[in-house]
Amino acid sequence: MHQILEMGKLLVVGSVAFDDIETPFGKSDKILGGAGTFIGLAASQFNVDCSVVSVVGEDFPQEYLDVFTDHNIDISGIEIVKGGKTFYWKGKYHNDLNSRDTLITELNTMADFNPIVPEAFKDADVLMLGNLHPNIQIGVINQMKLRPKLIILDTMNFWMDNTLPELMQVIEKIDVITINDEEARQLTGEYSLVKAAAKIQDMGPKYVVVKKGEHGALLFNKEHIFFAPALPLEEVFDPTGAGDTFAGGFSGYLAETKNISFESLKNAIIHGSNLASFCVEKFGTERLIKLQKDEVDDRLLQFKDLTQFNIELT
Amino acid sequence: MHQILEMGKLLVVGSVAFDDIETPFGKSDKILGGAGTFIGLAASQFNVDCSVVSVVGEDFPQEYLDVFTDHNIDISGIEIVKGGKTFYWKGKYHNDLNSRDTLITELNTMADFNPIVPEAFKDADVLMLGNLHPNIQIGVINQMKLRPKLIILDTMNFWMDNTLPELMQVIEKIDVITINDEEARQLTGEYSLVKAAAKIQDMGPKYVVVKKGEHGALLFNKEHIFFAPALPLEEVFDPTGAGDTFAGGFSGYLAETKNISFESLKNAIIHGSNLASFCVEKFGTERLIKLQKDEVDDRLLQFKDLTQFNIELT
Repeated sequence: MHQILEMGKLLVVGSVAFDDIETPFGKSDKILGGAGTFIGLAASQFNVDCSVVSVVGEDFPQEYLDVFTDHNIDISGIEIVKGGKTFYWKGKYHNDLNSRDTLITELNTMADFNPIVPEAFKDADVLMLGNLHPNIQIGVINQMKLRPKLIILDTMNFWMDNTLPELMQVIEKIDVITINDEEARQLTGEYSLVKAAAKIQDMGPKYVVVKKGEHGALLFNKEHIFFAPALPLEEVFDPTGAGDTFAGGFSGYLAETKNISFESLKNAIIHGSNLASFCVEKFGTERLIKLQKDEVDDRLLQFKDLTQFNIELT
Repeated sequence: MHQILEMGKLLVVGSVAFDDIETPFGKSDKILGGAGTFIGLAASQFNVDCSVVSVVGEDFPQEYLDVFTDHNIDISGIEIVKGGKTFYWKGKYHNDLNSRDTLITELNTMADFNPIVPEAFKDADVLMLGNLHPNIQIGVINQMKLRPKLIILDTMNFWMDNTLPELMQVIEKIDVITINDEEARQLTGEYSLVKAAAKIQDMGPKYVVVKKGEHGALLFNKEHIFFAPALPLEEVFDPTGAGDTFAGGFSGYLAETKNISFESLKNAIIHGSNLASFCVEKFGTERLIKLQKDEVDDRLLQFKDLTQFNIELT
């Protein structure tokens, strides 16, 4: 008896964009960016059938579209708007790389983004909703024919400030939310992340992932807490996309395994942290695009060394 | 053949003081405090022969001395100065508990602290130098008859600002330094903690422990990095003494095992973090004084749950 298991399907919705980045180490000029891009590239490290739904303008070069297809990412859901311009973001990081100023945001075609889920992905196992207007996120959930095994939501303080009622409606419908520590505090009014996570779970999600940047990430459900550090690096070159890369590794692993137990989510957190540690080593997607499986595996061993210990209780 | 192993000896040098603490949750009034106190009480959780060397005034109550002896801590090295007053510190924490204002510092007898190492501890296995003037720390090292297996140094930015040459002389002589992330950066001029730790190792210590408070602690030697998170707590009540409690657990475990391998130091980091998680739950030493072994063991299991994962590489 030999059973052929279907490859896990991952549907990603997120921006595909031009980024223009300045760090203390240099300037990138206009390069490939966007949450959907980082998520898709990170997820492509796993054995998954992945589609990215997004929108770009006619100025978006074929070579950037080829980056997706070269990584076996389905782009039938990336709309190319005739005469339109691609979402453009320009930012400058401060010296410690922990904060940045946004210099330019041109939404362009993203302003009217109306995602159309490809027919073949309306039964995706995992739905990864990148950081977007909550109404767009709900619109995607509503297009699914089958309720995905797992819906993961990324969001940010901007939507809490400006579209809280809509955001609360999405949060009610999803399984995992990923937000940073300050956002968890803002959303709940609780300083303690343990209390904040409990309150967010009461809003709907079974799992809460709190991203703490260089200080790692926490995973909560009702009974358990798991923590993964960020890998200590000699040099962080460009933090752009690290959070999305984390989300891509997290969702990609879960789509590959189709296992949504707490143990599996723990592994997904480690895989996400691992991939994020590569992302920050070069500008934008540069490091992710060339990333090889043996490099990924080597660094997973570093994560083990970094965190695993053996204390026997007497 | 039955070999009787001698119990490990730990010598602790550090302040024994009165603390007067205000947090958003209340006021402590004048209570038992000081680095030497927290270190000793944390170390007393281990099977060690521990002595605390310090100085107090005649105002120091017998019941506080009894706290030490009740925990099998040798106090023959705690000098009681006739007519003198005990070191007094009063501080107020801000709302997030991550920063505090010192309201009063009265050094009193600490101003002329001239530590005398008890004869029986001049061959201690582990020497834990609490945060003090570097000249005092050197003075203690020079009193040792045998070079301890491990000398651990705690220090802070104050000594970097005011007595850097003297501090550098101590750093040269010790095996493990414990400092916080900002101090590691100040001491080396390196923002990256990986680079900072490497530079500090070049100054002398084989091991560098970087304390990041609620963000955990890192252990470095030339080849390896290990990370232990702080246990996420529902509520932190009073952070006073958490770093010293960490140092006490760290040094106590190493004195008990007399094993100074990297694997053993990893366990010591976990034990230190574990004990620190209790310290912050009540004012001052209150929680440590009543701490039971089964509580400690239970929470060690929580540390395992929090950090251990099982990813098989394919």
